[in-house]
Amino acid sequence: MMGVQLTLDKLLDRAIDLFPDRELVTKLPDGSTHRYTYADAGERINRLAHALDDLGLEQGDRVGVVATNHYRHFELYFGPACSGRSIHMCNMRLPDHHFVHTIDDAEDRVLFVDPGLIETVEATADELETVEQYVVLDDDVPETSLEPVTDYESLLAGQPAEYDWPDIDEDAEYGMCHTSGTTGLPKGVPYTHRAMYLHSVMGGHVDANAIGERDTVLPVVPMFHANGWGIPYGATFVGAKQVFPSVHTDPESIAHLIDEEDVTFSAAVPTIWLEMAEFLDENPEVDISNIDRLTVGGSAPPESLIRRYDEEYDAPILQGWGMTETSPLGTLSTLRKETAALPSDEQYEYRAKAGLPVPGMQTRVVGDDGEEVPADGETMGELQVRSPWVTDHYHDRPDENERAFTDDGFLRTGDIATRDELGYIDVVDRDKDVIKSGGEWISSVQLENELMAHEGVSEATVVAVEHERWQERPMAVVVPRSGTELADDDLESHLAETFPSWWLPDEYEFIDEIPKTSTGKFDKKTLRDRFDVVLEAEDDEPAPQQ
Amino acid sequence: MMGVQLTLDKLLDRAIDLFPDRELVTKLPDGSTHRYTYADAGERINRLAHALDDLGLEQGDRVGVVATNHYRHFELYFGPACSGRSIHMCNMRLPDHHFVHTIDDAEDRVLFVDPGLIETVEATADELETVEQYVVLDDDVPETSLEPVTDYESLLAGQPAEYDWPDIDEDAEYGMCHTSGTTGLPKGVPYTHRAMYLHSVMGGHVDANAIGERDTVLPVVPMFHANGWGIPYGATFVGAKQVFPSVHTDPESIAHLIDEEDVTFSAAVPTIWLEMAEFLDENPEVDISNIDRLTVGGSAPPESLIRRYDEEYDAPILQGWGMTETSPLGTLSTLRKETAALPSDEQYEYRAKAGLPVPGMQTRVVGDDGEEVPADGETMGELQVRSPWVTDHYHDRPDENERAFTDDGFLRTGDIATRDELGYIDVVDRDKDVIKSGGEWISSVQLENELMAHEGVSEATVVAVEHERWQERPMAVVVPRSGTELADDDLESHLAETFPSWWLPDEYEFIDEIPKTSTGKFDKKTLRDRFDVVLEAEDDEPAPQQ
Repeated sequence: MMGVQLTLDKLLDRAIDLFPDRELVTKLPDGSTHRYTYADAGERINRLAHALDDLGLEQGDRVGVVATNHYRHFELYFGPACSGRSIHMCNMRLPDHHFVHTIDDAEDRVLFVDPGLIETVEATADELETVEQYVVLDDDVPETSLEPVTDYESLLAGQPAEYDWPDIDEDAEYGMCHTSGTTGLPKGVPYTHRAMYLHSVMGGHVDANAIGERDTVLPVVPMFHANGWGIPYGATFVGAKQVFPSVHTDPESIAHLIDEEDVTFSAAVPTIWLEMAEFLDENPEVDISNIDRLTVGGSAPPESLIRRYDEEYDAPILQGWGMTETSPLGTLSTLRKETAALPSDEQYEYRAKAGLPVPGMQTRVVGDDGEEVPADGETMGELQVRSPWVTDHYHDRPDENERAFTDDGFLRTGDIATRDELGYIDVVDRDKDVIKSGGEWISSVQLENELMAHEGVSEATVVAVEHERWQERPMAVVVPRSGTELADDDLESHLAETFPSWWLPDEYEFIDEIPKTSTGKFDKKTLRDRFDVVLEAEDDEPAPQQ
Repeated sequence: MMGVQLTLDKLLDRAIDLFPDRELVTKLPDGSTHRYTYADAGERINRLAHALDDLGLEQGDRVGVVATNHYRHFELYFGPACSGRSIHMCNMRLPDHHFVHTIDDAEDRVLFVDPGLIETVEATADELETVEQYVVLDDDVPETSLEPVTDYESLLAGQPAEYDWPDIDEDAEYGMCHTSGTTGLPKGVPYTHRAMYLHSVMGGHVDANAIGERDTVLPVVPMFHANGWGIPYGATFVGAKQVFPSVHTDPESIAHLIDEEDVTFSAAVPTIWLEMAEFLDENPEVDISNIDRLTVGGSAPPESLIRRYDEEYDAPILQGWGMTETSPLGTLSTLRKETAALPSDEQYEYRAKAGLPVPGMQTRVVGDDGEEVPADGETMGELQVRSPWVTDHYHDRPDENERAFTDDGFLRTGDIATRDELGYIDVVDRDKDVIKSGGEWISSVQLENELMAHEGVSEATVVAVEHERWQERPMAVVVPRSGTELADDDLESHLAETFPSWWLPDEYEFIDEIPKTSTGKFDKKTLRDRFDVVLEAEDDEPAPQQ
């Protein structure tokens, strides 16, 4: 068979060949809208590739991008990759020393920076060892201490609109992201053309995200988070219309964009959709019912949120699970024949799980003894995955590589999960967050979701605190809804309807806001540090054995 | 990224892991039904692999299969492939000397034969040079001159139900088909694991066949025709229920199977669906409306047939184009956003075309001057394709390899096509069938389809006959509907509504039945030989220039 390499230029070429007039829409920072087509984007991507030549970038060199989601960022998704370089998608929400580490680690030679993010880069520029050129993603250069510096439009101006893509091996790197590094320094994950090509085909699979040419996609998830969950690449492969919000990721702007641009597919962490629900309730004239699926990842949405979006906004939420290391899509909570046949009320149990492995992804749940746990939906173990789009190493981190993979080639995800008899994976916790109480495991995530289903609770998280007798016990940290009075007893009796007594938190703390990580997840590490207590043993305490 | 090889064991393993209880249903030759699950099939495929070991088959060796579509054939789709051998899917409808050539060419060491096809093999067995063992696909061996011979169930009996699949390179061959060889000897197309893995993922793409786990598929197309159009592999990847008709490919049986097994996806050449329409009209109690799409390939269905299936049976026909050389899926007549927005009546124009290249397939239409023709839907040229699942050579045929491929790596399909501005490919003829009249081209297929839209016509074909002045002119060969009187004038005035005068056939011949090739296509070569005339120039003749 033909040795056609699975490279990203094929994705772009297909969009230009078959869907040259499809729109790419950006809501710009100033509130105006930029529209152009795949044909337009293609020309500019070719110009960009020539500009990279002029900057002296060799095959395999990396360029960093510090940007929100917009059309110039989209062009940078393809220009470096198709011309044999690599895009390093920089997470500017990391602490400064982590941000600097990621750029040094990737050895970025050029840094493309949003005008609105220049200050972030200026603050660390002195420490950046490899950057030779800054490019502001605009049509002029503002007052800045960065140097040498130019603007993106000057870079492209006068370049030819056609570039003859080099022959690229499908195993070559096209991009890199760093993990958000909740423990230790962020780790670089180098992505290959082959991996993202396969991820993109899978993204259009009817048993996965089913992104097709008739969709209009809106990735709210930042394009520096695990390839924007692969959406810009997958949508380009099928020639779908794409909508980019740039800085306008507030719930009001997203809701209006969905309504006005007829968005059918969007993706974000649950907090975005939680907040948007509040907005929609107050603004019933905004209609998001053209949505076919709102993909949620990063952390699990409470079942109550899925119900609310079905019942109130006619916008189905589809949960997914993935990691920076997995490109990212691993599982999706699609309904299979057996669960689709259930009454809709019973379907929520499955829709609230991480879901089924997408075609091309192997999953298994492995216990402490190294054996797969029973597929009973209850026994917990570590989720391990294997796929052509799962990394097999971290960039320049031999220390991490040794412990991250099994001898037979699976990635140890560090997520604690169950698997049921239909194959649904339920991620019940992070390895470091699961509460190990008296030799048994308690899922902090399941407690959190049930707490957030309580009408008086705005947000809630559960962390382990040290305990004299049981090693660890759960503590709930709760943000009440404004105007609501909450007592420990209310929540305890609520949880007791669902969980055994020994799962119930020993302590409840009420606070105004739960700290979040740079990726929008609850920052449990900060909370654990803040509530660093040791609980004493009491005689009447529930025991796991009971 | 992980070097996970794209091999066919991944397809099977996924079905067994996630969908062990899904059914594979066979209507056996005696009319009874055989049902078992992917878990059952998996065990038997493992036993088969052990049996191949015992037969002394080495890595890369080929086994031939001479069989209709049934569960044992399905097992042979995976057993040899997953254990590192190759399945040669034999077309027993070929003339004897071609059939013998294919088996000699593939060097099949073992031949698996349906009991009902033993006579076909017996008639040529003396000439088969490489076959060491015959296996009858049954639970005993009938009276036969084949030797040595055993039966399939004896071969599997006592073998272990687990086999540790070897590490197979994705570029290794898993199977071979031969082209039907309308000109010269059939040519072998060796298929790689990678090609069929990618073809299978694409088969589930929402912009292609969208075969998902909720589907029930019924491949009427023989499994020896281009991998049964890839359906058994694609359906296994997603864990869909599969239904095999064995010898029961008559319209009545297929209609009942669709009705009773809730088939949602089926695939066959147009003649099957043409004939089934007659049956359905006479048997309105048979309901095939659970069909989501009836894929048609091999030759183009007339638009009238597509309309009829929509209006009368609520069973949408989806046309596809492909070849043995392309695994086979190349294009599909899916509606894209622009055409889906048209009134349904205007959609038929697009649904009757070969369609859009599926994701992963590159197509172009090239004129005699070597340049791509204008995308105007009118200018004809040769369809050329490129994809990871298009062959880059024929087995042991250096003579053919030279002329079959372009310098830049496209397959010359030999099909004459147009491309419109939305990217729809319309295959208007085979290179050898297009009528070259006075320097212009006339599509025999378009004339045929219009003739078959006439209410008095049952079947029709158009062939080129030699002409003194215009080199070639069209001749129509028509089978009237029973009880219908047809005259040349009726058909000429019907065609004149659509085509310019110089396209209209010079001659009409009325016959009882159009001869068909082994793949069910109109056998134009036989007709050209039968109507081997030379038309004389006449003064009042239409000229292409007019």
